[in-house]
Amino acid sequence: MTMKVGFIGLGIMGQPMAKNVVKKGYSLSVFNRTAEKALPLKEAGAVVASSPKEAAKGADVVILMLTGPDAVDQVLDGPQGVLAGLDAGKTVINMSTVPPSYSRQLSERLKSRSIAAIDAPVYGSKKPAEDGALVILAGGSQAKVKEMEPLLLSMGKKVIYCGEAGQGTSMKMVVNLLLSIMATGLAEAVNLGQKCGLATETMMETILSGPTQCPLFEFKKPMLLSDTYGAQFALKNMTKDLRFILQTADEAGAAVPAGHVVFQLYRAAVGRGLSDMDYAAVKKVVEVMSDPS
Amino acid sequence: MTMKVGFIGLGIMGQPMAKNVVKKGYSLSVFNRTAEKALPLKEAGAVVASSPKEAAKGADVVILMLTGPDAVDQVLDGPQGVLAGLDAGKTVINMSTVPPSYSRQLSERLKSRSIAAIDAPVYGSKKPAEDGALVILAGGSQAKVKEMEPLLLSMGKKVIYCGEAGQGTSMKMVVNLLLSIMATGLAEAVNLGQKCGLATETMMETILSGPTQCPLFEFKKPMLLSDTYGAQFALKNMTKDLRFILQTADEAGAAVPAGHVVFQLYRAAVGRGLSDMDYAAVKKVVEVMSDPS
Amino acid sequence: MTMKVGFIGLGIMGQPMAKNVVKKGYSLSVFNRTAEKALPLKEAGAVVASSPKEAAKGADVVILMLTGPDAVDQVLDGPQGVLAGLDAGKTVINMSTVPPSYSRQLSERLKSRSIAAIDAPVYGSKKPAEDGALVILAGGSQAKVKEMEPLLLSMGKKVIYCGEAGQGTSMKMVVNLLLSIMATGLAEAVNLGQKCGLATETMMETILSGPTQCPLFEFKKPMLLSDTYGAQFALKNMTKDLRFILQTADEAGAAVPAGHVVFQLYRAAVGRGLSDMDYAAVKKVVEVMSDPS
Amino acid sequence: MTMKVGFIGLGIMGQPMAKNVVKKGYSLSVFNRTAEKALPLKEAGAVVASSPKEAAKGADVVILMLTGPDAVDQVLDGPQGVLAGLDAGKTVINMSTVPPSYSRQLSERLKSRSIAAIDAPVYGSKKPAEDGALVILAGGSQAKVKEMEPLLLSMGKKVIYCGEAGQGTSMKMVVNLLLSIMATGLAEAVNLGQKCGLATETMMETILSGPTQCPLFEFKKPMLLSDTYGAQFALKNMTKDLRFILQTADEAGAAVPAGHVVFQLYRAAVGRGLSDMDYAAVKKVVEVMSDPS
Repeated sequence: MTMKVGFIGLGIMGQPMAKNVVKKGYSLSVFNRTAEKALPLKEAGAVVASSPKEAAKGADVVILMLTGPDAVDQVLDGPQGVLAGLDAGKTVINMSTVPPSYSRQLSERLKSRSIAAIDAPVYGSKKPAEDGALVILAGGSQAKVKEMEPLLLSMGKKVIYCGEAGQGTSMKMVVNLLLSIMATGLAEAVNLGQKCGLATETMMETILSGPTQCPLFEFKKPMLLSDTYGAQFALKNMTKDLRFILQTADEAGAAVPAGHVVFQLYRAAVGRGLSDMDYAAVKKVVEVMSDPS
Repeated sequence: MTMKVGFIGLGIMGQPMAKNVVKKGYSLSVFNRTAEKALPLKEAGAVVASSPKEAAKGADVVILMLTGPDAVDQVLDGPQGVLAGLDAGKTVINMSTVPPSYSRQLSERLKSRSIAAIDAPVYGSKKPAEDGALVILAGGSQAKVKEMEPLLLSMGKKVIYCGEAGQGTSMKMVVNLLLSIMATGLAEAVNLGQKCGLATETMMETILSGPTQCPLFEFKKPMLLSDTYGAQFALKNMTKDLRFILQTADEAGAAVPAGHVVFQLYRAAVGRGLSDMDYAAVKKVVEVMSDPS
Repeated sequence: MTMKVGFIGLGIMGQPMAKNVVKKGYSLSVFNRTAEKALPLKEAGAVVASSPKEAAKGADVVILMLTGPDAVDQVLDGPQGVLAGLDAGKTVINMSTVPPSYSRQLSERLKSRSIAAIDAPVYGSKKPAEDGALVILAGGSQAKVKEMEPLLLSMGKKVIYCGEAGQGTSMKMVVNLLLSIMATGLAEAVNLGQKCGLATETMMETILSGPTQCPLFEFKKPMLLSDTYGAQFALKNMTKDLRFILQTADEAGAAVPAGHVVFQLYRAAVGRGLSDMDYAAVKKVVEVMSDPS
Repeated sequence: MTMKVGFIGLGIMGQPMAKNVVKKGYSLSVFNRTAEKALPLKEAGAVVASSPKEAAKGADVVILMLTGPDAVDQVLDGPQGVLAGLDAGKTVINMSTVPPSYSRQLSERLKSRSIAAIDAPVYGSKKPAEDGALVILAGGSQAKVKEMEPLLLSMGKKVIYCGEAGQGTSMKMVVNLLLSIMATGLAEAVNLGQKCGLATETMMETILSGPTQCPLFEFKKPMLLSDTYGAQFALKNMTKDLRFILQTADEAGAAVPAGHVVFQLYRAAVGRGLSDMDYAAVKKVVEVMSDPS
């Protein structure tokens, strides 16, 4: 019998992910606060629910892809929430980025209602989401993650089991810290070269010819060449994630000196109105701190 | 007629580079301050000179692969120096990492003796040097770089023309800034994950499965897994390069906030006796600033 | 008729502050979780209550001097809490350091019970607390602060009215940010001089002879000379306050680049077991990042 | 017999210092590159020399108050330089701010000509220079410093003997590091308060009422209140000094994490055209990194 899936949160990431779920033949019921974002899913064959509760009703699994802890709480609780609709014995897979401490609390809370929790944030942005090529970072019961693997693989190319509840989220902190530092490193390096009179194109060719050759810098190359930063992953969301990362590092006792500097740059970028640009736009803050050209 | 090449500086990088030159059939004369390092070159078919002057005598091109500006000055000047042996009309290719301002001065100085100067630092460390797979960042007269390309390609897979004298060196500042920030980012990210209880192996698998997948992190993976840091590129040399980078950024008016933090971490690593380890050992300083495990 | 005062929290600061209240002739009822800390107050003429509720019963004003938001919540709520004992129309003066957002929420919460709230954290540590020489940073209704001024002046030399509810606390963020940066500046400067071979005593004489001459550095001088850091203000508390400060700065959109660096140093100090030392002990972290002597 | 003094460098600091020397009855010969700056000294009774050589001719002591190492070298060397005029057995007091390594080299160089060297940078800016209230940080032979103390006290209220040649300069690094960090701390703290809605006047009153009460913040108070930064000590000079400080710290193996952040802020201030303002204008860079008001 086909697994019945509820999917809540149809933003830049959630939309293509949900489409890939329905394409693989799962019976899908979707919900999004802004209703029109659900229309493409309807066309793709999903049922559009009128509330989180309705999306959860009768589902074997509910997937959440939301902007953070507050949004997750809002969708779970209340008379129209997921928990009002989901049966005991079922599973919630939270793919939203939240702090690990939140994931652990959520797992406890769901366990007390006999609902299994998997935290499964994704590594990759818009393009891999569309291609079903995300890397999925899973935490929770290993058996349960195994059971959900086919569903998860409808959205991604690989599931990496990270450990018990919260550890998928911990891994997300690790990779987003690395991504934000690399994006800042790219911004500082390219800005330095520009001030020295090097051509941006030659720099990107060099960076992509040596040990620094990586998909991240390939994605950012056209942004730096055109100096326009259409969001693959919005700067405001990276800033929010850095807040979680610094809090996680503080609780875990891990030094993050570069992380703190990077956060200050992203925070300044938000203040300068760059929130909705791609997070590579941190370069504009580095420019502002440099001599005028 | 075969081009005659002098090669001075047979360290970790210079040795395999010189070997690749001789393998391609160039007539090679080598010099190294510590004489025994020249022996493998002798076996490979090079002539071992007794001084920089002798290595330069009759050469069409002299290649320098030394530790910095002081070493270059020492090798060029004095009665036994390169300039005492090299004829007017010939070429010096400085592949050592120096500040761009030094490269520009050196070019002027050589020009006044009718010697052409190319600054051609390399992008890549020990392994690509052995494989002849370096990326070579060339500054100077474009025609002269073109003329030298076959020689340069005996050591590398690609020559990137960066601009006039000093611009090869500027590009080296750009990529080494990026490398040092990325190595620090990797150190902070992996350390954060370890404090959160993640397995290092799972982290490296994740990092190498997503947009951060790059040769640099592949090179560093066994170091982080074994917590031993055999030098591919020595930490003390990265620290020295960061000094040049910060000085270049200051002169060029480029902000390098992450660069400054990274320099402090590398400087601290030197103080803790990690100079001769690979520069990925910056992780040990991040650990010291973190809570004990 | 004498004003009746309840005082809760008799730590390093609360104890001498409460003593100064009773000395000025106020009728005082005190409570502390660890009961023996209340004994000196009993000797001084205060009544020792068995619960926050009892301390609040019949009081005109309840003063709180606790370690942070959680401690304040615990003391206010529950069947034995202050709010179970305090009458409508009375006043709570919270002198604990908390984030401004917490102060504003607390004010709202108390207002809904017709209780007036003043946030009045203090500027100054153990010694000025003993001498009744604290500077008191008051937020809330200006009329109510005026009314409470005589009581506040029993503990301090000066009351500075900072604005509506939460603004006393905002001012505390401002001065503690400054104090923590100055303590770090002193640590870096003295450590630099020591590495250069200067005598610590000569440095402190210099620093206290010029524009940097201030009580703060006078207090820290014996600590630096003896390299022992008996807490005037514990490092763990400064670390906690820095957490509030960075959060406040993030919410307010204020850049705090030095503040972030200072937090990382304090956080590292906590990890190295320096929590209970004076916050001037941040110097020991600066030493660890420096070359060995 | 009256001591004959040559004084070279009549900028913001040198002018009032030289005036105080002549006021105390010393026979003074002055030189300044821009000749009109010497006129007020002529009125005060000094002889105006036409070159450094002439100012040094017949002098017992030559005082230098210049912008840095390059300016000192220029004034000492060449056919019209100090060394062409000054007799063996005499003394040079360099009060310019230079790196300690330069002071040590200068001392050696003068010693080889049998000229005594004292490095005696000053602690204090324009106002104390006018009032003869500078603190003078002296390095060199202790006997020679003792001998020169009356002359030095014509310009200052106190001479602090710091140690052998270069140690006066080391002490200057220590205090300027502290000053620059404190000015940045003040900028971040006041900016934070402003973003929180506190009045700048109330903040300055608070800061000047507690342990942070110091002449430095009293000097800067009117600048922050009026948001105009007339130079007591120019931002460009503090930036230059920070360059020396970071270099000194690097050589000495001293960690200066806050110092590096502060340098980046000052460097950015220079890039934004604030060079000639007082160094308290670093606040404007902190503002730029913050949310708009």
